[in-house]
Amino acid sequence: MNELERIAHLAARFGVGGPAVRVGIGDDAAVLEGFAGSLVWTVDAQVDRIHFRVEWASFYDVGFRSFMAAASDLAAMGAEPVAALSSLVLPLSVDDEAVGALSTGQADAARDVGAPIVGGNLARGTETSVTTTLVGRATHPVLRSGARAGDLLLLAGDVGLAGAGLLALLHGVQDARIAPCLEAWRRPRARIADGRMLAAFAQKGHAHAAIDISDGLVRDASHIARASGVRLVFDAEKLVTHVGPKLLAAADVLGRDPLSLALYGGEDYALLVASDVPMDGFSCVGVVEPVSPGKKPCVMVRGPSGTREVEPYGFDHFG
Amino acid sequence: MNELERIAHLAARFGVGGPAVRVGIGDDAAVLEGFAGSLVWTVDAQVDRIHFRVEWASFYDVGFRSFMAAASDLAAMGAEPVAALSSLVLPLSVDDEAVGALSTGQADAARDVGAPIVGGNLARGTETSVTTTLVGRATHPVLRSGARAGDLLLLAGDVGLAGAGLLALLHGVQDARIAPCLEAWRRPRARIADGRMLAAFAQKGHAHAAIDISDGLVRDASHIARASGVRLVFDAEKLVTHVGPKLLAAADVLGRDPLSLALYGGEDYALLVASDVPMDGFSCVGVVEPVSPGKKPCVMVRGPSGTREVEPYGFDHFG
Repeated sequence: MNELERIAHLAARFGVGGPAVRVGIGDDAAVLEGFAGSLVWTVDAQVDRIHFRVEWASFYDVGFRSFMAAASDLAAMGAEPVAALSSLVLPLSVDDEAVGALSTGQADAARDVGAPIVGGNLARGTETSVTTTLVGRATHPVLRSGARAGDLLLLAGDVGLAGAGLLALLHGVQDARIAPCLEAWRRPRARIADGRMLAAFAQKGHAHAAIDISDGLVRDASHIARASGVRLVFDAEKLVTHVGPKLLAAADVLGRDPLSLALYGGEDYALLVASDVPMDGFSCVGVVEPVSPGKKPCVMVRGPSGTREVEPYGFDHFG
Repeated sequence: MNELERIAHLAARFGVGGPAVRVGIGDDAAVLEGFAGSLVWTVDAQVDRIHFRVEWASFYDVGFRSFMAAASDLAAMGAEPVAALSSLVLPLSVDDEAVGALSTGQADAARDVGAPIVGGNLARGTETSVTTTLVGRATHPVLRSGARAGDLLLLAGDVGLAGAGLLALLHGVQDARIAPCLEAWRRPRARIADGRMLAAFAQKGHAHAAIDISDGLVRDASHIARASGVRLVFDAEKLVTHVGPKLLAAADVLGRDPLSLALYGGEDYALLVASDVPMDGFSCVGVVEPVSPGKKPCVMVRGPSGTREVEPYGFDHFG
């Protein structure tokens, strides 16, 4: 298919949009309505050999997970997804069947999230990349900067499983006990319903800050610590217990410490919230404390042998 | 600089945003306000060796032109740009100085257009690409589908110059008379003020359809023809006269027909409008006619030797 044929194919795949969509695919730009409150807007790109490898994930998975990665940012703001645009860069070697699988993965993720794909861009390149931009609505957008000493650290969703899946793929580990981790890496889910809960608690003044865990818990938590001027103290045991047997099994298979997997593995798209009350569907895995005199905002882990600061290692594209 | 340092650098470069920006760079997503009417939304990607070559355009130019290409879509909808997100994929070989130049080009274009960059994404890849998504406001978004038989075809901005500039670069042509074409290719301008004029005429019911010329006049005009179910008939002489002496000089230098340059050269980001009255700043270069019985919507050129249909050749990423 040539470019125009592919656009027509994508338009058919992505459907006609939702109630907020006045103009969808096929014009210079999409037209949306109903943003009388705040518009929340994000963009995320996934690049072949950096975020995925087509040997490790089907094109369907690539479409699905790249959409979910972008949608997760809206969940972390407590925003309701409204619509998306998809910008694809595709080498000539990516054939029509692959484009079909990729766009089906995107469309399925868009349906799950409730944000139809209403436009986009298509370009040739030497490297496959999928860039997704989403808009959503929020009455009380939840930022990274509102965490207060005394808040609970609440976590919804697994941390460490997707990272363990990626490790297994990198090292060619084949073991049935790693299957949930491969699934976590290939088919993450943006936690939209938890984002709705977050918004409700933010509106009542309880949820003060939030972030989604894309680059690893410690690295992403350090963004909240810095933006809020606090220190985040995770409870090692609660954290490992929260993720549960899948994490322990993966750690065993990979010969890794489960706590390290939970602290440093990315791409699960869990939600971390600082709130002064518990929230349904979230586990308490730590507390927010004031920064010690003369110290900087940081992330700490409290375990049987004491409390130690942990460095915000995690995926850095240029580090 | 590592990823976080680069983000901080970009945040400083892009500034603090405008009145519609509640949350800019540095959170999971940007938060905007004031979209009580229609939200107009576009995304555009520019890829190294497809849309530009770093040998031919400075990184500043790459940033500038990629932003303008995206902003042009809003102009073509009659929308007022509000804000932008920038998603960069950068090889490790693109050093901090290059990123600085690129982001300065983006920031300057954003200032020109009046749409601050309020967020984005940064990822490593093997191929440089710049993806820009913009939102704008419109009370009367102008689509491709409204052209009516009897409308005038109005053009604002040059067509063919940027394409001639690209040809000169491809063939290593060095001639002072080609300088305006190189400038057109390197530093296109989104026609935001003309877009405002378009919106005013749309509101009064006069401007019926519009598109920006990114892939060549005939190819982009064919989108209006098809979407509106009409044929667009360009006047060869008026078209060449509209662009003027720069086009004639470039045609002479390159040994090409000026009309062909005007019909098939892309990336000038001129605006083509179908309107039932003339508009300030636009030249009349043709008319909209009904489709002949048994024929399909098409694009035609009327010249001294008669009227002929022209094929919508133009840049196709996968054609």
